[in-house]
Amino acid sequence: MELTARQIAETLHGRVDGNPDVIVSKLAKIEEGTPGSISFLANPLYEDYIYKTGASIVVVNENFEGSHPISATLIRVENAYTSFAQLLEIFNRLKPAKSGISPYAFISKSAKTGENVYLGEFSYVGEDVVIGNNVTIYPQVYLGDHVIIGDHTTLHAGVKIYNDCVIGSHCILHSGVVIGADGFGFASQPGKEYKKIIQSGNVVIEDDVEIGANTTIDRATLGSTKIHRGVKLDNLIQIAHNVEIGENTVIVAQVGVAGSTKIGKNCIIAGQAGIVGHLSVADNTIIGAQSGVEKSIRESGGAYLGSPAVEAGKARRNIVHLRNIDNLVKRVNELERRMNKEKPE
Amino acid sequence: MELTARQIAETLHGRVDGNPDVIVSKLAKIEEGTPGSISFLANPLYEDYIYKTGASIVVVNENFEGSHPISATLIRVENAYTSFAQLLEIFNRLKPAKSGISPYAFISKSAKTGENVYLGEFSYVGEDVVIGNNVTIYPQVYLGDHVIIGDHTTLHAGVKIYNDCVIGSHCILHSGVVIGADGFGFASQPGKEYKKIIQSGNVVIEDDVEIGANTTIDRATLGSTKIHRGVKLDNLIQIAHNVEIGENTVIVAQVGVAGSTKIGKNCIIAGQAGIVGHLSVADNTIIGAQSGVEKSIRESGGAYLGSPAVEAGKARRNIVHLRNIDNLVKRVNELERRMNKEKPE
Amino acid sequence: MELTARQIAETLHGRVDGNPDVIVSKLAKIEEGTPGSISFLANPLYEDYIYKTGASIVVVNENFEGSHPISATLIRVENAYTSFAQLLEIFNRLKPAKSGISPYAFISKSAKTGENVYLGEFSYVGEDVVIGNNVTIYPQVYLGDHVIIGDHTTLHAGVKIYNDCVIGSHCILHSGVVIGADGFGFASQPGKEYKKIIQSGNVVIEDDVEIGANTTIDRATLGSTKIHRGVKLDNLIQIAHNVEIGENTVIVAQVGVAGSTKIGKNCIIAGQAGIVGHLSVADNTIIGAQSGVEKSIRESGGAYLGSPAVEAGKARRNIVHLRNIDNLVKRVNELERRMNKEKPE
Repeated sequence: MELTARQIAETLHGRVDGNPDVIVSKLAKIEEGTPGSISFLANPLYEDYIYKTGASIVVVNENFEGSHPISATLIRVENAYTSFAQLLEIFNRLKPAKSGISPYAFISKSAKTGENVYLGEFSYVGEDVVIGNNVTIYPQVYLGDHVIIGDHTTLHAGVKIYNDCVIGSHCILHSGVVIGADGFGFASQPGKEYKKIIQSGNVVIEDDVEIGANTTIDRATLGSTKIHRGVKLDNLIQIAHNVEIGENTVIVAQVGVAGSTKIGKNCIIAGQAGIVGHLSVADNTIIGAQSGVEKSIRESGGAYLGSPAVEAGKARRNIVHLRNIDNLVKRVNELERRMNKEKPE
Repeated sequence: MELTARQIAETLHGRVDGNPDVIVSKLAKIEEGTPGSISFLANPLYEDYIYKTGASIVVVNENFEGSHPISATLIRVENAYTSFAQLLEIFNRLKPAKSGISPYAFISKSAKTGENVYLGEFSYVGEDVVIGNNVTIYPQVYLGDHVIIGDHTTLHAGVKIYNDCVIGSHCILHSGVVIGADGFGFASQPGKEYKKIIQSGNVVIEDDVEIGANTTIDRATLGSTKIHRGVKLDNLIQIAHNVEIGENTVIVAQVGVAGSTKIGKNCIIAGQAGIVGHLSVADNTIIGAQSGVEKSIRESGGAYLGSPAVEAGKARRNIVHLRNIDNLVKRVNELERRMNKEKPE
Repeated sequence: MELTARQIAETLHGRVDGNPDVIVSKLAKIEEGTPGSISFLANPLYEDYIYKTGASIVVVNENFEGSHPISATLIRVENAYTSFAQLLEIFNRLKPAKSGISPYAFISKSAKTGENVYLGEFSYVGEDVVIGNNVTIYPQVYLGDHVIIGDHTTLHAGVKIYNDCVIGSHCILHSGVVIGADGFGFASQPGKEYKKIIQSGNVVIEDDVEIGANTTIDRATLGSTKIHRGVKLDNLIQIAHNVEIGENTVIVAQVGVAGSTKIGKNCIIAGQAGIVGHLSVADNTIIGAQSGVEKSIRESGGAYLGSPAVEAGKARRNIVHLRNIDNLVKRVNELERRMNKEKPE
C-alpha cells in the first residue's frame, strides 16, 4: 500500500512541511529509514538522526525546530509518538487477514463457530466448544471440551486451552500459552508420597486481556482462576490456581503469583517478581522487579521493592546502606579501636 | 450425574444432618454455592458463608456447631477437607473418558501401543515408540523415536518428548512440557565462539510423577537426567542436564536446577529458587522461595533461605537486621558524634 | 554401528593400551559402563571408577597412570575430555537422519523449500516462506508468512515462528521456542485501561545460534530484535522487543532481558538474572546468577553480582558482611553500652 505525505497528514490531523506528494509504503526507525519509508522523531535524544535519515517522511512534534538542513518531508503533529502509534495501526490494518476454516483442522460435531472465523491447520476444537464471531485461531491450537471463545479474540499458533475454560472478547493469547492446566495441589500422605487433589474448577479470562508467549494460568481447584478485563500479561508468567487479577493490572515477564492470591486493579508488577499464595494486594500497587511479596498489601497506591519486599523508599535507602556496608563495618572497627584505646575493658 | 445426601454420606462414612433426599449434581465453593450443588466448610474463618450459602449440601467436621440457622443439609464427617478431596475425585471419575486412536494422529509402523489407549488428533508417534496400556495422549503431542510411555500415564495437549526418553506409569505431563531437549553444553573455542557438545543421553522419569505446564527437562550429555518416583514439579521449571531429583520431592513454579546437581528425597523447593550446578542437596531439605543455593547441603532435614541461601533461622534474623539497617547507621553516626565530642582525634 | 579400539584410536589420534580388537557400539558414563561400551576418564576425582567399570574401552589422558589393575582397554589421547566430545559427535552422526516432506505437513503454495529438507508431520509453512537447503523441521512446527530459514538449521517439534522473522544458518531451536510474538507495549489511557501499540517489526537471528526449550524472543515494535551470530540461549529465557544480543554471548536458563537493551559480545549471563530495559551492557561482561542489572555497564570485561548488581568483588564482600550482620549489631550494642557507662548523656 502506498500513501502520500498529504494523505497521511490528513489522517493524523497534521501539517506537511516539504513535498506533499512524496510516497511511502512502509514504516522504519529513523536510524534505519530508506526512501519510500516514513519514520518519526519524538525523543530529542535522537535528533541527530533526522539530518541523516534516508526516510522520505518524518513525523515530528509541531514545534520541532531543526538546526541543520533536513532532506525528508516533515509532517508536524501535536504528539509525534501518539501519531506514530496510529500509523502502526493503519499499516497493520492493511495486512491481508487470515480467514476460513482449514480442512486440516479438526472440529468436534457438537462445537459451534461464529461468523467470519479463521481456524488454522491442525487446530483441534473439542466437544461443545463455542467460538464467537470474528475469531482468529492460528494453526496447532487446542481447545478442550466446553471451552468458550469470545468475539474478536486471537489465539496464536499452538495455544492450549484445557476443557471448560472461558476466554472473553478482544483478547490476544500468544503462542505457547497454556490456560487451565491443573493447579499444583497435593495432599501429603503418611508414607511421604503425595496424593493429587483433583482440580475441577476452570479459568475465566474477561475481555481485552493480552497474554504473552509461554505464560501459564492454572485452573482453580474449585470455582475459577480469574483474569479480569483489561489485564496485560507478558511472557513466561506463572499464575497459580484460584488467583484473581484485577482490571487493567499489568504484569511483566517471568513473574510468579502463587495460589489463591488476589491482586487488585491497576497494579504494575515488574519482571521476575514473586508473590506468595493466599495474599491480597491492594489496587494501584506497584511491585518492583525481582521483588518477593510475602505479606498482604492493604493500602492502595503503594510501591514495594526487595525480597522480602518493603515500602520502596525504605528499600532504596536500605540498598544504599548495603552498598556501603563495607564502610559501616570499618567505622565500627574504628570506634572499637578508639574506645579500647581510651578505656580498655 | 445426581447424588442424594444419603448416598454421599454413605460414601464418605458421614452422617446426614437435614434432608437426606436432597439431590446435588455438582461441587461449588461455599461462597458460590447454588441449589443443586454441594460444598464444604473446613476452615472456621469461612464459617459466615454457611449461613448464607445457596448450596444444597455442606460437608462439615463432625463437631461443627453453627451459631445461626442453616438452610443447607449438612453431612458431618471426621475431616471435612479430606472428604471434599474425595468428592472431587468421585465427580471427576464420572467425566466421560477420551478413548480410541484418532485417524488424524500419525503413528510410525514400528511403534507399539497397548490396550485402551487414547491418542488424540495431530499427535505424532515416532519409530519404535512403546505406549503402555490405559495411556491418554491428547492432541498435538510429539513422541520422538524410541520413547517409552508407561501404563496409565496422561500426556496433555502439546507435550513434546524427544527421542529415547522414558516416562513411567501413572505420570501426568501438562501442556507445553518439553522432555529431553539438548542440555546446555558448549566448549569455548580459541576464537571466542562455542562448539556444541553433543547431548546423547536421555531423560528417565519414574512412576507417579506430575509435571506442570511449560516445564523443561533436558537430556543428559551421557547417561540420564533422572526424576524419581513421586516427584511433583509445578509450571515453568528448568531442570538441566544430568540432574537427579529424589523420590517425592516437590518443586514449585519457576525454580531452576543447574546441570549435574543431585537433589535428595522428600525435599520441598519453593517458587523461583535457583540451585547451582554440580551440588548435592540432602534428603528432607526445605529451600525458601527465591533462594539461591550455591553450596551443597550435606545434612538432612534443614531449611535454607536467601540468595545466597543460609540456614533459615539465621536468614530470618538477617532480614530483620537489614530492615533496620537505616537505624543501625544512625546509631553508628551517633556513636561517632559522641566519641568525637568526648575525645576528638 | 560397531567400532574397534584400533579404529577409534586412529580417529582420535590416540594410542591403544590393551586389546586393539575389542568392539564397542555405544557410549557410557564410566560409572555406568557395560561390555560393548566406551567411556572416558578426564577428571581425577572419578579415577576410582576406572578400576570397576564394565566398559570395554576407556579414553584417558596420555599420561594417566593407574594405581590398580584395569580390565578395560585404554585409549591414550592428548585430552580425554575433548576426544570424548569428538566421540559423541561421531556416534551422533551415525543416527539415521530424518528426511523428506511429510504428506501430513501443510505448505502454502507460495513457499519455497531447498534441497534435502525434512518437514515433519503437522508442521505448517505459511505464505512466501523460504526454507534453505539441508533444513530439518520436526513435526508440529509453525512458520508464519514470509519467514526465512537458513541452510542446515534444525527446528525441533513444536517451534513457533511468527510472520516475517528470519533465522540464520546452522541454528538449532528447541521445542516450545516462540520467536516473534508481540512485544509488550501498551499506551496507558485516561480511563486507566491500556491500548496496544502495534508491534510491526520482526526478529532476526543470525547463524550458529542455539535456543533452548520454551524460550521466547519478542518481535520489535519497529525494526528488529537481533540475536547475533554464535549466541547460545538456554531454556525459558525471555528476550523482549528491540533487544540486541552480541556475538557469542551465552545466556543461562530463566534469564530475562527487558525491552531495547543491548548486550555486547562474548558476555556470560548466569541463570535467573534480570536486565532492565533500555540499557547497554559492554562486551565480555559476566553477570552472576539471580543478579538484577539496573544500570548500563560501560566498561568491557567486568563481573557483576547481586540485585541490584554491583561489581562482583564488592558484592562478595558485602555478602560476607551481610552474613555477619547479626554480629555487627551486637558490636554496636556493646559500643553503646560502654559509651553510656562511661559518659551517659
